[in-house]
Amino acid sequence: MAQKPSIPKGTRDFGPAEMAGRNYIFDTIRSVFRTYGYAPIETPSMENLSTLLGKYGDEGDKLLFRILNSGDAFSHINYNDFKVDGTEDCYNSKALSLKVCEKGLRYDLTVPFARYVVQHQNEISFPFKRFQIQPVWRADRPQKGRYREFYQCDVDVIGSKSLLNELELVQMVDRVFTLFDVRVCIKINNRKILTGMAEICGFPEKVVDITVAIDKIDKIGLEAVEAEMIQNGLTQEAVEAIRPVLQLSGTTSEKIAVMRDLMGGKSASGIVSETGLKGLDELEELFSLIDAADISHEVEIDLSLARGLNYYTGAIFEVKAKDFAIGSICGGGRYDNLTGIFGLPDMSGVGISFGADRIYDVLKGLDKFPSEVTSSTRLLFANMGEAELRYLIPVARALRERGIACEIYPESSKLKKQFDYADKKTIPFISINGETEVSESKVNIKNLSTGVQSSFDKNDIDGVLAFLA
Amino acid sequence: MAQKPSIPKGTRDFGPAEMAGRNYIFDTIRSVFRTYGYAPIETPSMENLSTLLGKYGDEGDKLLFRILNSGDAFSHINYNDFKVDGTEDCYNSKALSLKVCEKGLRYDLTVPFARYVVQHQNEISFPFKRFQIQPVWRADRPQKGRYREFYQCDVDVIGSKSLLNELELVQMVDRVFTLFDVRVCIKINNRKILTGMAEICGFPEKVVDITVAIDKIDKIGLEAVEAEMIQNGLTQEAVEAIRPVLQLSGTTSEKIAVMRDLMGGKSASGIVSETGLKGLDELEELFSLIDAADISHEVEIDLSLARGLNYYTGAIFEVKAKDFAIGSICGGGRYDNLTGIFGLPDMSGVGISFGADRIYDVLKGLDKFPSEVTSSTRLLFANMGEAELRYLIPVARALRERGIACEIYPESSKLKKQFDYADKKTIPFISINGETEVSESKVNIKNLSTGVQSSFDKNDIDGVLAFLA
Repeated sequence: MAQKPSIPKGTRDFGPAEMAGRNYIFDTIRSVFRTYGYAPIETPSMENLSTLLGKYGDEGDKLLFRILNSGDAFSHINYNDFKVDGTEDCYNSKALSLKVCEKGLRYDLTVPFARYVVQHQNEISFPFKRFQIQPVWRADRPQKGRYREFYQCDVDVIGSKSLLNELELVQMVDRVFTLFDVRVCIKINNRKILTGMAEICGFPEKVVDITVAIDKIDKIGLEAVEAEMIQNGLTQEAVEAIRPVLQLSGTTSEKIAVMRDLMGGKSASGIVSETGLKGLDELEELFSLIDAADISHEVEIDLSLARGLNYYTGAIFEVKAKDFAIGSICGGGRYDNLTGIFGLPDMSGVGISFGADRIYDVLKGLDKFPSEVTSSTRLLFANMGEAELRYLIPVARALRERGIACEIYPESSKLKKQFDYADKKTIPFISINGETEVSESKVNIKNLSTGVQSSFDKNDIDGVLAFLA
Repeated sequence: MAQKPSIPKGTRDFGPAEMAGRNYIFDTIRSVFRTYGYAPIETPSMENLSTLLGKYGDEGDKLLFRILNSGDAFSHINYNDFKVDGTEDCYNSKALSLKVCEKGLRYDLTVPFARYVVQHQNEISFPFKRFQIQPVWRADRPQKGRYREFYQCDVDVIGSKSLLNELELVQMVDRVFTLFDVRVCIKINNRKILTGMAEICGFPEKVVDITVAIDKIDKIGLEAVEAEMIQNGLTQEAVEAIRPVLQLSGTTSEKIAVMRDLMGGKSASGIVSETGLKGLDELEELFSLIDAADISHEVEIDLSLARGLNYYTGAIFEVKAKDFAIGSICGGGRYDNLTGIFGLPDMSGVGISFGADRIYDVLKGLDKFPSEVTSSTRLLFANMGEAELRYLIPVARALRERGIACEIYPESSKLKKQFDYADKKTIPFISINGETEVSESKVNIKNLSTGVQSSFDKNDIDGVLAFLA
């Protein structure tokens, strides 16, 4: 029954080398989360479909991976129940799939987190600071850089409206990319300002159209953006009210000052947007906190940031690498009513998600993985036969108990083969000990890259450690 | 659209406290695996059903969670293709489910590992030492201690027949439970000896019946075991040939000596079992290596160990906690042909799996989780208002960059509320700083369990670290 084995399209195996890089990323991010008092949680891979359906729009519902209730789910089905009236062999596929599938694989970590908070609200002490690093699944068409299974790495605090939380997200991003030695730009927007822009235009219902158009300004230029807005039903007057925002320049406080004038009634329309002014207050306070925190990376206002328009209500974040062309590598924002869908209203939260796959590509592309990440085993003891093997077992054990990863080659094969093994695993030190070393209670160790060799008493573990360091 | 949220039966949420315990277990096990030169891999959660089906027996096939190809998989179905001949509305459910489901969630880590080795054989340098810590899914009826989603924690080496590998598994178990401070007994058997026992009885085909009967000897006694074997079709003579094995006592070498006589033709049947003798050679060599390695925990031969009879071909392992009543907490063995099912024959391997859920119960039951595992945030800075907050941001940052997990309470709420938060999160230190501290550039810190309080210059991070240690 030999088969040619393969894995489903859009999924991946991670071998030891990729795992080393991925673990470096996750461990670094996790360690930063922890220093800010965020604690890990995990939720099940499968959620009830009732938890997932309707949370990601119609398109999202189609991208949910549904799980058959059991291997023989179909034998319990009465197909007549699903027959479309007046047909002979036509069945209601949506109803049929809901009958045989009650569970689905999680699509993101946000909805399960909201579900978790509501379900466990009596055990949680708010503000609740959690992070979650787990895979999610989407039945998307697989293509380059888009997978059907991938890890998300989310950090959120829920139950606090303080902008200190926004600051700490910025600080965590700052620290993570300092540790990665990657230059980034942290872009910040505020949903209330986007609402304000639509309001001062006189088209509050067109906030999405307006934002989508503005988002293109770098690519297509001011005139084309204005043309698009008019095509979308805005008047010339509305476009003029908004124009100064599109031409914004200068420092953060200069930008805020211009916008404050516009939202305050000094635009072409003369309309005042209270929401827009509130957004500016938030942005101003956040930037004042950012000043106090001495952030190492570039932080800037970007009014074209338009992610999560359906649920973000305050700050919107996005992070881009400065020296590597790839989309955003982190993103997030504040949501005022995430848990409302599960019956717990008025829980404001803010969070950010790190894109592990893209960060991996950035670190690899910029050659930023530390060299110790790629090597695993530090020392290979060659296997010279039964007596030598028994001699080495306690030596290897002592090194391992001091944290050194070492291996004894399991067979007494030709030395060439054993060296090849060390070479392929990029093991930097080898130890070859024959009858002489055994009789003299010595251990010989050679640095394979420098060629330097040294001999130690077999109990001189400190000496060996120093040589391997 | 408020819903009462819940999760599917047999699945679990892990909150911060459980995660801390689980991470302690995984981190400890992982660190030991690494010192022995084992490297991590990860495989996709979903495998093609063709990879999974038929690998776990008929019962296992039923327990696979199948994944619908897409949300609207049913709309592409021509039901006539699945109609059972001569019926009007009866469909072949097995064929129908294979049509709409091509993928399934992995059932264990062993089959995906075999698939991985075959698929990537040209990239791997053998012997290949890998560990894998990932969830698996089984559509079992949920019950106490049995989950539909649970982590497995497997360590295997493939491509080496050396018994040094068996020794290293024993050493890793020994080290892990030393680090956990839990006394265990490591039980070892060998499939070839079980085969040998059936052979010297004259009933080589009854190896499973014989083993199952022997397994009960502690519970039901010698006579009842012999009666069961006779009920299973063994003759009185066969039972007598095997009796000395059931009465085995003394040291490991005494036990091996008695069995060597029996397998060598000195049993009541006079039959010689070459396979049995081979198994004794292996067991003897392994115990000689174990002697050389100075194992801290109890290691014993247990001929009643009968796990994995369908695939294990050499050593069989099982680990039990000595001071806590629970089933086996680790198990494994050697398999000579795991990758044969995927077209790569003659790849011998040996591995062991740590039962994380049971180990969690043992550590919890014996109160063996180190106290630092349960606490996360070390220090809470109370929030006394805007000016104090800005003063504290750089102090908190400096501590975090030195690895201290600290939080600034996000709102300037009443102190009572802030203390409650510290209490619920079991944060051991609190820092309250008002106008005076700010003007004097001081930071006050109080140890909440001893009541000891101290004041530091805000730049004296070393002093603060020492106080928090």
